[in-house]
Amino acid sequence: MNSEFDIIRRYFTRPSRLALLGVGDDAAIIACHSGMDLVVSADTLVADHHFFAQTDPGNLGHKSLAVNLSDMAAMGATPRWVLLSLTMPQELGQNDAWLSAFSSGFFALADQFEVELIGGDTTCGPLNIGVQIMGEVQHGMALKRSTAAPGDDIWVSGELGDAAMALGYLRRKVVLTPQEAQTCLNRLNQPVPRVGLGQQLQERASSAIDISDGLLADLGHILKSSGVGATIDFERIPCSNALRKKLTPGHLEYKLAVDCLLAGGDDYELCFTAAANNHETLLQLSQRSNIQLTCIGKIVAGNGLIVSTATGIPVYHERKGHDHFLA
Amino acid sequence: MNSEFDIIRRYFTRPSRLALLGVGDDAAIIACHSGMDLVVSADTLVADHHFFAQTDPGNLGHKSLAVNLSDMAAMGATPRWVLLSLTMPQELGQNDAWLSAFSSGFFALADQFEVELIGGDTTCGPLNIGVQIMGEVQHGMALKRSTAAPGDDIWVSGELGDAAMALGYLRRKVVLTPQEAQTCLNRLNQPVPRVGLGQQLQERASSAIDISDGLLADLGHILKSSGVGATIDFERIPCSNALRKKLTPGHLEYKLAVDCLLAGGDDYELCFTAAANNHETLLQLSQRSNIQLTCIGKIVAGNGLIVSTATGIPVYHERKGHDHFLA
Repeated sequence: MNSEFDIIRRYFTRPSRLALLGVGDDAAIIACHSGMDLVVSADTLVADHHFFAQTDPGNLGHKSLAVNLSDMAAMGATPRWVLLSLTMPQELGQNDAWLSAFSSGFFALADQFEVELIGGDTTCGPLNIGVQIMGEVQHGMALKRSTAAPGDDIWVSGELGDAAMALGYLRRKVVLTPQEAQTCLNRLNQPVPRVGLGQQLQERASSAIDISDGLLADLGHILKSSGVGATIDFERIPCSNALRKKLTPGHLEYKLAVDCLLAGGDDYELCFTAAANNHETLLQLSQRSNIQLTCIGKIVAGNGLIVSTATGIPVYHERKGHDHFLA
Repeated sequence: MNSEFDIIRRYFTRPSRLALLGVGDDAAIIACHSGMDLVVSADTLVADHHFFAQTDPGNLGHKSLAVNLSDMAAMGATPRWVLLSLTMPQELGQNDAWLSAFSSGFFALADQFEVELIGGDTTCGPLNIGVQIMGEVQHGMALKRSTAAPGDDIWVSGELGDAAMALGYLRRKVVLTPQEAQTCLNRLNQPVPRVGLGQQLQERASSAIDISDGLLADLGHILKSSGVGATIDFERIPCSNALRKKLTPGHLEYKLAVDCLLAGGDDYELCFTAAANNHETLLQLSQRSNIQLTCIGKIVAGNGLIVSTATGIPVYHERKGHDHFLA
């Protein structure tokens, strides 16, 4: 039988390099660097809500950290330390294959971003994976939601909607070719947080957020916090060919595809705003970093968020994004 | 209908005084003070494991923060900032009376210790309350588990076992008078974290831990981390009269009472070690601070933990403490 402490020791304890004291005491200890602000955030994944209970544990380990790294990316911060609060059913605590795959997925991503697991809590109950992340940013340089200004361009990284398409596919609501399914499932299961991009945007973006609940919902947070409105050019929103080919009016899955693009969560791309005179610099950054950056609209005075086609026709969309208590 | 954002805004958002940026962005931002180490910890309460699902929400709000403050106390740190990761069933998210009572209990204790809620996550699923706490301590002054030395005295604060007695009472395994029940239930539901004491022990204790899983289990962590053993004088372990009167050999509830005293969790008192020449100073501190401090034994070379009576008879005890995966 694995005890709570066996689980921590076997699967979640590694030598600490970045902390003064890591796993194994009442708390961990870290030294802040002078001139830096500490950026802290927490994101939880819940079985049957954020993922299917049967999800591959390696993917789950990856994703539970990825969604938190994505919050650091949205702040322009460098992620450093994480706590893992893992609640799991009794039988999972005795499932060494599951624990091993979960921790491998978690640590593989942690290594990639040089982030250290320094503590947390392991307890028994319905599967609930809470990660708390701490990062650093030069004092005063964090990217916020509240600082977009009228006239700013609105940008997004990468392509939107594939993770939501994968979810639709798993629920047998979306038809995909095997190859399309593979690509979309990869976006859902192994999101790549835009940490490097976030850091590069520190001096160029006026505000930023990561797209976890859907473009309209998350851009909506920027608009509300900044007290501004926006216009979005529907055709410029970047998406995969798999999604694009469903976006023809009259297509059987047209409404669903629009929904994935505008309100599909789980993409973990960045949506940010930048003064118009940064346009060229951002296109160069895109080329240099090999990360697609697309200008999709404008911040305007007032409020409201209008999505329309090039010919000015408003795009009908049923919902703005995911809300756990209105779902 | 409350949305996720309604819940955060109505019940968990207050103006930030201690943070550069509080609730409402992708992450919160705090400025570390020069010369201080940051101490971070996370503790989760799970329905039906750490508390009965019907527990008074005000008590739950209090306790979910108290157990985390207690970790700061055990480090000798000053608690400053917390994140709340609240997972709750759909219906609880619509239960304004529950939300209001929970947040009132949480904030009342937060105010008492001048701790600020700066962020977290609100999501849907089986009730799971995760708190992550951050505190500060002078560089290098944190109290650890790994620094007890042979010859040190072993001390505990307050009285042990009443919280476990209350749990036994609720499970109809322990008989208490109405007044005893009230006192014990108060210990279970409204634990008072020993934050001030922890800070005062910084320069006097050689190691410390908070008693959350039971005296033997938690002292056991100090012994294991420090590579030492201990002898405990059973009769010196402080407890309430309600518990003391059951500790007569032959009493119907004798075994259960021993178990509450030695292995009862949820007391949130501190167990610490200190060099013998600090004995008088600690008794003075006890008097000055009006917190009972009792020397209950000695750290010895080697390993093992022996509990015996004044006449040298070993005390039989069935289990060391609570482990979520061996329970």
